[in-house]
Parts: sequence; structure tokens; C-alpha cells
Amino acid sequence: MMKKIPVIEIFGPTIQGEGMLIGQKTMFVRTAGCDYSCRWCDSAFTWDGSAKKEIRQLTALNIWRELQQLGGDRFNHVTISGGNPALIQALGELVSLLKQNGIRVALETQGSRWQEWFYEIDDLTISPKPPSSGMKTDFHVLDDIIFRLTKKEKQGVSLKVVVFDDADFSYAEMVHKRYPHIPFYLQVGNDAISSNDESMLRTALLDKLNWLVEKTVQSKDMNDVRVLPQLHTLLWGNKRGV
Amino acid sequence: MMKKIPVIEIFGPTIQGEGMLIGQKTMFVRTAGCDYSCRWCDSAFTWDGSAKKEIRQLTALNIWRELQQLGGDRFNHVTISGGNPALIQALGELVSLLKQNGIRVALETQGSRWQEWFYEIDDLTISPKPPSSGMKTDFHVLDDIIFRLTKKEKQGVSLKVVVFDDADFSYAEMVHKRYPHIPFYLQVGNDAISSNDESMLRTALLDKLNWLVEKTVQSKDMNDVRVLPQLHTLLWGNKRGV
Ligand code: SF4
Ligand code: SF4
Repeated sequence: MMKKIPVIEIFGPTIQGEGMLIGQKTMFVRTAGCDYSCRWCDSAFTWDGSAKKEIRQLTALNIWRELQQLGGDRFNHVTISGGNPALIQALGELVSLLKQNGIRVALETQGSRWQEWFYEIDDLTISPKPPSSGMKTDFHVLDDIIFRLTKKEKQGVSLKVVVFDDADFSYAEMVHKRYPHIPFYLQVGNDAISSNDESMLRTALLDKLNWLVEKTVQSKDMNDVRVLPQLHTLLWGNKRGV
Repeated sequence: MMKKIPVIEIFGPTIQGEGMLIGQKTMFVRTAGCDYSCRWCDSAFTWDGSAKKEIRQLTALNIWRELQQLGGDRFNHVTISGGNPALIQALGELVSLLKQNGIRVALETQGSRWQEWFYEIDDLTISPKPPSSGMKTDFHVLDDIIFRLTKKEKQGVSLKVVVFDDADFSYAEMVHKRYPHIPFYLQVGNDAISSNDESMLRTALLDKLNWLVEKTVQSKDMNDVRVLPQLHTLLWGNKRGV
């Protein structure tokens, strides 16, 4: 019997808005629950109780059928996101099922928890949280996760740090130096997660991106990094399910 | 004695605004001259005579020194762009020199000409031009280039097609089907290459991106592709040298 997975949204096809696969056509499965509570979390509804009624307990097969219903023959890539999907052991069943059906799978997690099924993920983004989040990175755990992942040769893995201010940038430099061989992405923080004024939001995000590019250009420790905005926020503002 | 390379700009560090390395911190070397004359070329100054006085004949060593002067210890990546840099055999000397100095090298060309030094490029973007450009792709030449590149195992190569309209999108589908194993990027065309109104330009580009995402989402032939804007145009409008 298949185990249940707490799911808060399934949507797509759309494009991945951020990180190593920015622009990639994909479906999204968003799980409920997080062991963090970042100050600026842009998916707090997955863990703060506000969307409690939307959480469904689904088996891997339920999820796969819903993905097929929504996406038909118009997808071959699925992104699993949260919350922190790494809390959910049963996700391994979904990952296997997707892979058996020829689907490429991406996952994003903050790197606070290991799961054996990480090895089956094609594109794994580890996104440790900077000081502005209010969270503290457990580097023993993170070291261990990165170590396990780099043992496997063909694992697609990247680090991504969201940057809001100078302290966050210093944290990003430190993380990049600690794991210099992992492809590294800097992402502009979104200060205005509840704004409905799309044009103001766009301007604010692009100004922030400009600032982050300038910081990166000036830093000799950040030569081999990539700086990116969240495309979905530029496109669709703070809307959910796009 | 080193051969001369016609160069129209050298600038950076900045970020790569488009394609497979979007967001990557890099320096730019832009060569003069093109065998095409695309209707919407956003670097027509490299070939239309308007910036003739800016063209300098430089050796690989001259270029490397200028890169070091500009970038100091704040870069380890160089992007060679044009015009069509694939016209210039002598660029092989620059590529070798950069690689000897531990620099990663990216190159963009439309795929109308082969050079043996392509094999030394780390990240090669082939960007065949769609109908709206007014140009005609020579698929004999393109087939041959793709065939040579895929013989080498570790070559980083991608295809990128700029899309302005439905006919361009159909062309992109055809190219993607012809070379299904090459990572494929769709890029939003910039209709307003001479606009100085940055906010209007941003809105127009994001509306266009929205349209292209929707086309891609609906197409079952475009499941494994990535859709991207030009970040530098969103950030800095149509300015040169950023
Ligand atoms: S780790 Fe992610 S989902 Fe969890 S609180 Fe932080 S930003 Fe939100
Ligand atoms: S191939 Fe590139 S540089 Fe040459 S005319 Fe076309 S867009 Fe311009």
C-alpha cells in the first residue's frame, strides 16, 4: 500500500521561475509543512495554517494521475517544492513513479534534512537560508548532505542563496567558499511578498537585481556564480498557482 | 606573430543576460562583422558601419591584457559575442590563451560557419535565426556543425531561437525536433531595440515573455525546453556596454 503525502497544490504546465532550471517547462507539486519559518517566506501558506483546508493526503499514484490530467502530453518534467519536501519520506514513492514514467524530476529544499531518495532527483537545489530569514543553518547537516550528493557522479545539484542585504551577501560568500565545486546561484529577495501593485513590484525587484549584480561584480570571491531574479514574480507578481 | 582580431567592444565584469548561462558573471569581448543582416539585429553597430571608428585590430594578447586591466581578479569567465565571431579564424588564439589562463569561455554564433576552435569553447550557443529575421538558415551547414559538436562528449552546447511571432515559434519547433538532444532555449524577441523608455520596454518584454510561455505550455512538442527573457534588457534597456 502506498503511503500518503501531504500536498497543498499541483499545477502547470508552466515555467520554473528561478534557480538552476530557470525557464524550464515543468509541472509543480507543492508539499505542505516546513521545519523552518523564514521571516520572508513566500510560501508560508504551506506551513502557517492559513491554507490548512487545502492540504490533501495523496498517494504517489493519486499525484501522478492528477499531473497527467492537468498536463496531458504537454510535460515531461516535474518540480517538487514546498514547504520543505525533504521532511516527507513517502515522496520517494512519487519520485520513483515519475522516473519510471520517463519524467525528469527537480526538487528544492533548504538542506536541513537528508532523504535517500535525493539520489533519484535529476536536479536538486539546496537553498540554505541567510541571516535575514531569522533561521540558523546547521552546517553539520549541510556538510553531510553535500558530501553524500557529491559522491554520486551524475547528480545535478546546485546551491542557491536568496539575498536581501549585505549580511546575506556575506553569508552567500561564505557558503560558496565552503562548497566551491557546487554550481552557485544568487537570487534576489522579494521584499514585497504581499504587494498587489505589479508595476511597483517589478521595479523594486529589478532595482534589487541591479544592486545584487553590482555586489557580485565587485566581489573577487564571487567570480563563478550566477545572479538571477524570480521570473514568475516579474511575470505574475505574487499570484499563487502559476 | 599573432594575428589581428577585429574587436568592437570589451567590457565587464557584468552578467550574461541570456541563454544557457543566464545570470553568469562574465566579461564580454564583442567582435566586428557579420555574414547576416537580421531585420531586428540588436548589435547592428557591429556590422552596419555606424560604429566603424570603434573597431580595433587587436591580437589575442592585447585582448587578454585589456580584460585583465578591466576585470582584475574579479572574473574567471569570458563570453565572446558579435556580430558573428565564427567568421574570425584568429579567435582560436584568444580562446587558447584564455583557457591557458584558467578562464572558462562561452561563445555565441548563428551557426552559419564552422571553426575548429569551437572544440575549445566551454559553453557554445548556436542561435539559428527564425523567419522574422529575414535570413534563411542553411541546414546543411547547421547539421554539420551540430554533428561535429555532438561527437565530442563534454562539449557544452545549446540551441537558442529568438521568437517574435507564430511563424518564428513554428521554426523553433522544427529546429528542436531536428536536434532533439541539444538543450533548447526559447528567447523573447525585443521589438523595441531603439526605445529609450525603460518602463515601457520592460512591460512590452514581459508581456511578450508571457505570450511565449503560453505558446510553450500549449505545445506538446516543446516539453523539454527553457523560455527566457534577456535580463540585461530588463535591467538596463537598450544601453550598450553593460
Ligand atoms: S525554508 Fe522555504 S518554505 Fe520553509 S519557511 Fe523558509 S522559505 Fe518558507
Ligand atoms: S546574426 Fe546576430 S549579429 Fe548577425 S545580423 Fe543577425 S542578430 Fe545581428
